Amino acid sequence: MKHTVLAGGVGAARYLQGAVEAFDPADVTAVVNVADDVTLHGLRVCPDLDTCTYTLAEAIDPKRGWGLVNESFKAMAALRRYGGLDWFSLGDQDLGTHLYRTQRLIEGATLTEVTAEICDGWGVRATLLPVSDDPIETRVTLGTGEEIGFQEYFVRLAHSVEISSVRFVGAERAKPSAEALKAIESAETLVIAPSNPAVSIQPVLAVGGIEAVVRARRSQNVAVSPIVGGRALKGPADRMLRELGEQATVVGVARRYQALAATLVIDEIDSEFAGEIEDLGMRVIAVPTVMSEPGVARALAETCHRAGVPR
Amino acid sequence: MKHTVLAGGVGAARYLQGAVEAFDPADVTAVVNVADDVTLHGLRVCPDLDTCTYTLAEAIDPKRGWGLVNESFKAMAALRRYGGLDWFSLGDQDLGTHLYRTQRLIEGATLTEVTAEICDGWGVRATLLPVSDDPIETRVTLGTGEEIGFQEYFVRLAHSVEISSVRFVGAERAKPSAEALKAIESAETLVIAPSNPAVSIQPVLAVGGIEAVVRARRSQNVAVSPIVGGRALKGPADRMLRELGEQATVVGVARRYQALAATLVIDEIDSEFAGEIEDLGMRVIAVPTVMSEPGVARALAETCHRAGVPR
Repeated sequence: MKHTVLAGGVGAARYLQGAVEAFDPADVTAVVNVADDVTLHGLRVCPDLDTCTYTLAEAIDPKRGWGLVNESFKAMAALRRYGGLDWFSLGDQDLGTHLYRTQRLIEGATLTEVTAEICDGWGVRATLLPVSDDPIETRVTLGTGEEIGFQEYFVRLAHSVEISSVRFVGAERAKPSAEALKAIESAETLVIAPSNPAVSIQPVLAVGGIEAVVRARRSQNVAVSPIVGGRALKGPADRMLRELGEQATVVGVARRYQALAATLVIDEIDSEFAGEIEDLGMRVIAVPTVMSEPGVARALAETCHRAGVPR
Repeated sequence: MKHTVLAGGVGAARYLQGAVEAFDPADVTAVVNVADDVTLHGLRVCPDLDTCTYTLAEAIDPKRGWGLVNESFKAMAALRRYGGLDWFSLGDQDLGTHLYRTQRLIEGATLTEVTAEICDGWGVRATLLPVSDDPIETRVTLGTGEEIGFQEYFVRLAHSVEISSVRFVGAERAKPSAEALKAIESAETLVIAPSNPAVSIQPVLAVGGIEAVVRARRSQNVAVSPIVGGRALKGPADRMLRELGEQATVVGVARRYQALAATLVIDEIDSEFAGEIEDLGMRVIAVPTVMSEPGVARALAETCHRAGVPR
């Protein structure tokens, strides 16, 4: 069997952890967002890829939800001596990853190749594929009209400001990775992970050709709502959806995904919306989706897989 | 008064420490070699500048002679997980310096500007000036005929192989920094620090225009021999000079510097060579020069300054 996941950061990483418990990790592939990658201090930083890798390696910091556990921040403290840019905190061990990635990219390796090497380093057996080896950059327009980079919005401003739109610079020109396309096309089930629809999943779909390939296999695709009880479990997805003029409910999520997936998995708490979602032409499965509870991620992956496999 | 020093790494740094004890640090300027700078993992690393800065900040690791005291190496350990390039060890706090420098260079700052900012961060009051803001790269040809970068020779191979020549790629085209030229021209005394003549001082002189400006004021220039009793106090200067077909003695040093400085300061232990050096047209001053002994660096700086000031 093959189980492929369109993935952003934390929500996708937790889902993937469930998938590798449920299935042979060699059958699990994630096609990961790269539009919030950023070059800081000359180093190439790929937050979503690293969150997935570190989570699957069981090395993620469980409190922060990003970076490595038992981390120190001495380089950052030293940087402050010079008044350096320190709003994007890079741990000392985490820096090892960025140093390695940057060196390999300078040497001419693709991001796909480097990501495989980094996964090997951690013994991660699932396959993580950047959606493209080309750079894509999420830009966020604030309520004030100013446009800034995604990490500036997300980290520097702690996503505490109103936004009016997002765009993915370079996405249309970006070539989807051959491996990613194949993983989408050949999957028994394709899952849209419970990641931020606007800034994690959309920039994966926006890469030239990806959305069409996803749509073409809609009946075997299963989306998991990142909105539970009208709120994002982590991050600003709920607020962002509202600010972008959408509904921050499972129905809003269904509107986003109705052309892409035949099935929407929602949390039990949102069962009341099932009818509205079915009216949009999607099948609804209501199960526990809050993956901080033990066993939920694994059961969710099993549910999703069954829902995608043709009967 | 103004006291300017042509500087490489450790020997120069110790001399500068003596100079800021002897004089008002605001009067002390170092024109520093940049030809062993290297880009590693995308980060710009400037070993000689940093050794001078950290030494003047009293933050250098006294045991290793490079990098910061109380340093950890977690990023490097993490890099090894991936089999990354780890022969040039960058400490976690030291990485803060390279992150800052790289970010500022990307933003368009000159190396001269960034160096001033880094010195400010450490409260270093002497002025450190890269000889040029342009990149220069020392390349070393080994006895085998293979040519490699300086840090590969110096660090990766621990300078344990025979060399046949060195060259400074980009030196002739490099524009000397206006500040460095002015510091050389306006100095009461110009000191050639006891650094490796072949790979620390020569690439400073090789920058277009620098050697001519130094020669033009020969009578006020004072060189300090890095060779004591036929040996380099640190590093491979003695072996390198021999391998380049020169004498690894104070006389060999005098031959290198006779057109550049009117005075050569040698260690007392080498007094026997005074006549031979005077025959080359240089005045000789024999004093203690081993700066690991307390008070020697300060006295040496005072001696040098007096020797350069016209009477």
